[in-house]
Formats: sequence, C-alpha cells, structure tokens
Amino acid sequence: MINGFLTCTVCRRSFASDEPRWRCDCGGILDLDFAPGIDRRALAGRPPTLWRYREVLPIRDDANIVSLGEGFTPLTAIELEGRTVHLKLDHLSPTGSFKDRGASVLVSHAKEIGIGHVVEDSSGNAGAALAAYSAAAGIRCRIFAPAGCSPGKLAQIRAAGAALTEVNGPRRETTRAVLRAAESTWYASHGWSPYFLHGTKTCAYEIVEQLGWRAPDVLAVPVGNGTLLLGAHLGFGELRAAGLIDRIPRLVAVQPANCAPLHRAFMAGETTVPEVEASPTVAEGTAVDAPIRGAQILAAVRATGGVVLSVGEDEILDALSLLLGRGHCVEPTAAVGMAGLRNILPGMDRDEVSVVVMTGHGLKAGERLAGFRNGTPR
Amino acid sequence: MINGFLTCTVCRRSFASDEPRWRCDCGGILDLDFAPGIDRRALAGRPPTLWRYREVLPIRDDANIVSLGEGFTPLTAIELEGRTVHLKLDHLSPTGSFKDRGASVLVSHAKEIGIGHVVEDSSGNAGAALAAYSAAAGIRCRIFAPAGCSPGKLAQIRAAGAALTEVNGPRRETTRAVLRAAESTWYASHGWSPYFLHGTKTCAYEIVEQLGWRAPDVLAVPVGNGTLLLGAHLGFGELRAAGLIDRIPRLVAVQPANCAPLHRAFMAGETTVPEVEASPTVAEGTAVDAPIRGAQILAAVRATGGVVLSVGEDEILDALSLLLGRGHCVEPTAAVGMAGLRNILPGMDRDEVSVVVMTGHGLKAGERLAGFRNGTPR
Repeated sequence: MINGFLTCTVCRRSFASDEPRWRCDCGGILDLDFAPGIDRRALAGRPPTLWRYREVLPIRDDANIVSLGEGFTPLTAIELEGRTVHLKLDHLSPTGSFKDRGASVLVSHAKEIGIGHVVEDSSGNAGAALAAYSAAAGIRCRIFAPAGCSPGKLAQIRAAGAALTEVNGPRRETTRAVLRAAESTWYASHGWSPYFLHGTKTCAYEIVEQLGWRAPDVLAVPVGNGTLLLGAHLGFGELRAAGLIDRIPRLVAVQPANCAPLHRAFMAGETTVPEVEASPTVAEGTAVDAPIRGAQILAAVRATGGVVLSVGEDEILDALSLLLGRGHCVEPTAAVGMAGLRNILPGMDRDEVSVVVMTGHGLKAGERLAGFRNGTPR
Repeated sequence: MINGFLTCTVCRRSFASDEPRWRCDCGGILDLDFAPGIDRRALAGRPPTLWRYREVLPIRDDANIVSLGEGFTPLTAIELEGRTVHLKLDHLSPTGSFKDRGASVLVSHAKEIGIGHVVEDSSGNAGAALAAYSAAAGIRCRIFAPAGCSPGKLAQIRAAGAALTEVNGPRRETTRAVLRAAESTWYASHGWSPYFLHGTKTCAYEIVEQLGWRAPDVLAVPVGNGTLLLGAHLGFGELRAAGLIDRIPRLVAVQPANCAPLHRAFMAGETTVPEVEASPTVAEGTAVDAPIRGAQILAAVRATGGVVLSVGEDEILDALSLLLGRGHCVEPTAAVGMAGLRNILPGMDRDEVSVVVMTGHGLKAGERLAGFRNGTPR
C-alpha cells in the first residue's frame, strides 16, 4: 500500500509519512500526497464500518488499524416544508461524534509510526474521540480543553483514561497550551493532521454509497475547524477522480453568527481568515475563532459553488427543536447545519438532493437538552 | 404479509392482531403467532438497519414503518484474558439503547392499527425510545418513570416531546400508575407487547449475519424485564427454524445481586418468579423487582442450557471500567452482561464464541461517568 508523503502547503517541502511530525519546519500545514482509488464492486459483503473503504485509507498494515466500529452511520430522511432532507447520523458514532472517523485513522497512523504518547486540544468531541481511540490502541493521551465545556464531554474524556487539562480563557489559550506540550510530545491534532481528514472523508464515501452511488446536490455541515467539510471535499474529490460520481456537491458551511470568522471572510471575498472576537454560542463545537485550515475551507467551498452561512442562536435552537421533535437526539452544534440549510432550502430546485450531517450526540449536552420540553426550548 | 394473531399465554384465547389491546381479558400476557422465515440471499444490498430483515417483522404495510435508522449496530471484539470477546454495540442506537429495536417495531404497529396516543412506563431507556419513535410517528406519548432516574434520560424523554410523569416510591408504584392510565389509553409496553420482542429479536439476526451466518456459543446480556433476552431467544429460534443456524446459543442472563429475582428463582429451580425486595443498584436499567415475563425468561434460559447469574456492584463497576478503558462509552447497566461473562469465561472452551450486548450509552449516565478517572472509579 502506498502511504504517500507529507507535503507542506506553504513551502512545498516533502517529508516521509512515517516521520513523527505534525507541521513543516516553516510552520506550514502538511497535507498528504495520496491519491487512491476504489472499485465499488469490491465492497460487497464488507462490514459496514468506514474501514470498508480500506483501499483509500492511508494505513499500511491492517495490524495497526484501531477501530471501535466507527462509520457507516445511518442515512435517513425527514420531510421538511414539503421536501425530503437526508440526515447523516454521525452522532451515532462510538464516542458520539463524527470525530471518530478522523480519530480512528489518525490513531491508527500514530500506532503505525510507533507513537506512545499523544496530546490534543479540543472543545470536547475531538478530545473524547482521541481519548477513546488512544485507549483502544494502548497509547497514552493528554487532552487540553477550554474550561467550561459540557461536563458530559469532559467526563467522557476522563472516563476513557486520558489525562485532562482544563485551560481558562478563550479558545486560543487552549491552543497555546497544547502547542507548548507538542514541543515534546506528538500532537495528534484534528485541526493540523491530514490523517484526520482522510478519516472524515469517509463520510462522503458513505453518503454516495447510501444514495445508490450518486452524489447529493448539497451537503450542509456545521464548521468550526472544518475537519468534516474538508474531509468531505477530499472524499468527493477522490470519488470523482475514480469515476464513481460526476460532480462534487455544493458544500454549505454553516457557522454560528456569534463566532463566524469563515462567514465574514467568505462574504468579504478574502482568501485567508482573519481572527475574530467571538461571543459565546450554544454551538460550542463551532466556537473556533481562528480555524487552522481556514484558507483551505474557503477554497473548498468556492470550488464547489457553495456558500458559508451564519445563523443566529435562535435559529440554532429552532433547528435543534425541530430535530429533537423528529426523534433525533443531537447536540446544539449538530443543529447548526440544519439551521443553515433551512435558510437556503426555499431557493433550491425541488428535485435537488440535500444531506445534512448530524455531527454530535444530544446526550453530550444533557444540561442543554434539559432546557427543552415538548420539543421546544422552555 | 401475514400479520399473525395475538394469543394469550395463559388461557390460549386468540385475538386479531389489529385489535388495540395489550393483554388478554384474563390478564394473561399475549404472544404473537407469527412464524416467518427469511432467505439470506435476499439481503444483499439492503441498507444496514434492522428493517433489512423485513420479511420477519410483523408490519403489513411499508408505509407504517417508523424508522430512525436503528439496527445493524457494530459487532466488534476485545481481547480479554487471552480470549476474544465480541461486543454488540447496541448503545449506538438512535436514542442510545437497544430499546430502539423494540420501539421501532412497536410504534410501527401502533401506527398500523391507528393508535393516536400511547402511554409507557420505563426506568429511562425504553421511555426515551418510545418518546422518540412516537415523535417520529406523530403519535402523542406519555411516559411514567420512577423519580430519581438519570437526569439525562428524563431530559431525553422530554426533549423528544413526550409528557413525563415522575412517580415516587419503588418501581412497582410506576407500574401501578401506568396501569391506571392504560385503562383509557393504549399501553405501548416494552414488557407486555410481543411486538417489542419482534423488534429486539433482530439483534440475534444481526449477530448471526455479522459472524458470517453462524450462531455464537454464548450470548450474555443484562436482564431486567428481559426484553433483549426474550427477543434474542425468539430470533435465534426463527433462524434455526429457517435452517440458517444449527443451534441456539446458551443464553446467559445477568442481574445485579441487589435486584436479582430471576437469579434467585433460577437457582431455586422455580418456574415462576416471586417478587423480591431490591436494594438500589448502579445498573438502574435492570432494577426490576417483578419482571413481567419472568416465567418465559427462566424457560428460555433453561431451554438453551444457559444460566442466570448475579453480580455485585463492585463487579459491575469493574466491568464498566474495563469497557470504558477500551474506548467503549457504555452505561453501568450495559456492564452487567460483561461482569457476568467474566465469571464464566474461565470455564468456557477456548474456541467458543461469546457475544456480550452493550445495551445503553455511557452518555446517558454522565454523572456516573464523571465518577471515573483514568478508566477507574475514583
């Protein structure tokens, strides 16, 4: 299996992919040169996990695969204003978020190159995912998280055996803390590592397979660091290169208005993303004021003819109420994508196929869920 | 599609299955006369939900199917004392427990016979499942739950739009309250309805398919009202009748010692189950002092050469710690089956295949999870 090279997105320098580095010497983000293909006839009879797309996952040796049964989450549909909207239920992943896709591939890679100890920073879901997959791999793990995250998420990180460091102050303080730790320990970063994106890309493969090997017209996702959106763009691109779909869906990135650096940059026609001063949002998973791969996110959205939207707190809670009231137990962050789609749905052709990814489990935010009665905020 | 008859397990009287009744006039439990078969070659290409076994599910019209993407949960494995133990990850069901299997079929049946309002009693998971599936079906739902259940479970019930009545006192007070309500409203009971068991039976179908169309030697499950165990027995029986497996696994029912009426009756050689005085247990889902189908559970376990075990609170917490430390985020009740299996594993042949069902999500019990650090109780 070809495992590719790590190539700097800034200075184009390349490194062997088994080097334990998480960024270029110049400080640039690394991407993985790895352009695999898959024959869909080979998939028949394989178990419904993301590892069914084995050929496109950059792990050399099967013995290094760290799996908790992630992937092939249900694709279901609801009726909304006379239209059918598909929901991809990634909140039903092993630790309760789509981050398990990235963590499974990233931790498998860490195991493959002999890493014994990782650090990661996360507002909660990525931390829970890294903690669980590290535990499954027998790798020590320390998570840095902003103080004040959902207690359920922090409890989940600790319960899986990871050390947890809560950091006071805005999100960037957590980033600073993990970067200090990364000087002496491998940084298993969902924001930096391209392996994480090669995990999240499987969401695109699954949607296409579950729709009967066709791409949707629109994919709407909440975006903080954009790991799901960038993974989806990567996956749809691979699928098109393999001749399995004929176009990439319009990618609709949705951010809470209270923390919308990508939306602001997109609307201003920028190609990079200035940091913003953010206000608190119920969608804590998207509370990222300086997304690491911001420029890539803008480029991906524009390349697909998509858009970056922002939605208000009331719109997020309304969308959450809608989803809860249809029986889907998701967290507020997961409702951000739906809130965005509702704003563009009236302008879409009626025969267009839209998919919204449910990114995180409602049980992660029990105290928030407790604020709802009869499907509506009380 | 033949939809069967409801037949009383006591007086053998039969009723049409579209009659809105939940028990016989004599007070007896109703079972469904319905002996379907399936051709496994027909399954290729069907979506991985429990509805892939469409032929064996007692719903006449596809239009009445109420689905949230339930079923075909991952079957994964861990190494334990030099052996491989398979875990069936039913906690990754839509509302976070195996109860979604039963609720999907039961609520589909309710929709099929035109029910507009249901009541149910539950220590939490069944209530959350009924609430969510009723919401998806547009059926009104009231849940009676013992006061003091996990706040996350109660919040989940309310968030899905169900009315919730918390009942003080022991579990039997909740039972009395729902029976009063059932005099005027349809009782969508996970304990009484055979439709619920025709949902939970799909767990057996999936395990057999996921093992490559072979039955395991041992299936270990936590048992309160025994809906998973009885469903599994039903499913394995149907699979054997269809010639798809050659034997039914030994069913290992596990109860917390603090509330173990089935264990006590089993050990005493009884065929019915006297009510016991129970103490509180961390495994709240199994805190059932008078299981409705107790006699059936004893008969099913004995027919398979299985056993009813009891495990102490420390053993449950140890098993929970083991599972959390392997990355599986389950609730204490889900650890009961593993605690039981650990007690019999040393006496099993090394080539025997065992499966333990992970019945509920750890995120349902965040406050309990918060009691764990580094994978162990603090």
